[in-house]
Amino acid sequence: MSTHWLDEIAWNGDGLVPAIAQDAESGEVLMMAWMNREALERTAATRKATYWSRSRATLWVKGETSGHTQEVVELRMDCDADAVLLRVRSVGGIACHTGRRRCFFRRLEGEGAAARWRETEPVLADPAGFRRG
Amino acid sequence: MSTHWLDEIAWNGDGLVPAIAQDAESGEVLMMAWMNREALERTAATRKATYWSRSRATLWVKGETSGHTQEVVELRMDCDADAVLLRVRSVGGIACHTGRRRCFFRRLEGEGAAARWRETEPVLADPAGFRRG
Repeated sequence: MSTHWLDEIAWNGDGLVPAIAQDAESGEVLMMAWMNREALERTAATRKATYWSRSRATLWVKGETSGHTQEVVELRMDCDADAVLLRVRSVGGIACHTGRRRCFFRRLEGEGAAARWRETEPVLADPAGFRRG
Repeated sequence: MSTHWLDEIAWNGDGLVPAIAQDAESGEVLMMAWMNREALERTAATRKATYWSRSRATLWVKGETSGHTQEVVELRMDCDADAVLLRVRSVGGIACHTGRRRCFFRRLEGEGAAARWRETEPVLADPAGFRRG
């Protein structure tokens, strides 16, 4: 009898694991969020990315309010079993609750203490109509 | 006077932020590790990925023992400022301490409780010669 795949995850002290979502087509890293055991189990079963919202303390099916779901093409785990990687189809092409294509929309520019985070991605959809997700 | 870029990061309770390293050429997500303020500052200053080892409680210049350094091409921050993304040139083409190209070398295969993590990446270098990094 082998270990259940969910038991191989090195859940942190809060029972969570970081989950990275990567666009399966473009390869862009879209976002990082957290999953508990139930979120990861549901993600695998439904093939829709489901996270654990730490701020709202609730399961959160990505796109449930915005329509910008993430269809999971592949699930991966790292060497230490303390991070998972989702390759996803980003429905609507918008992964960020700010209405941008991806959450990593700021790039560090400049040197030393004078460096600044600069926005590089346009807002593609009005974020007012949906809360995170 | 604007905020120092390091003060914009939403450091967690341990003073850390998750850092995702992505291969700048292939787009592959190589690994996820953690940075404290000094690690991120050094990463930006030296352009060599520098992490905080939680297990060893020390700064860790990726590749300092293995030679498999990560040259940072770009640094990004997400919408909530609680994750950073490094686009890197993975020197030697090996990011994982197991001697594999990337740490996410296991893929979930199968359905439900019968699913299993399967290794998909070959070991390219003898990992005995170097500890993590």
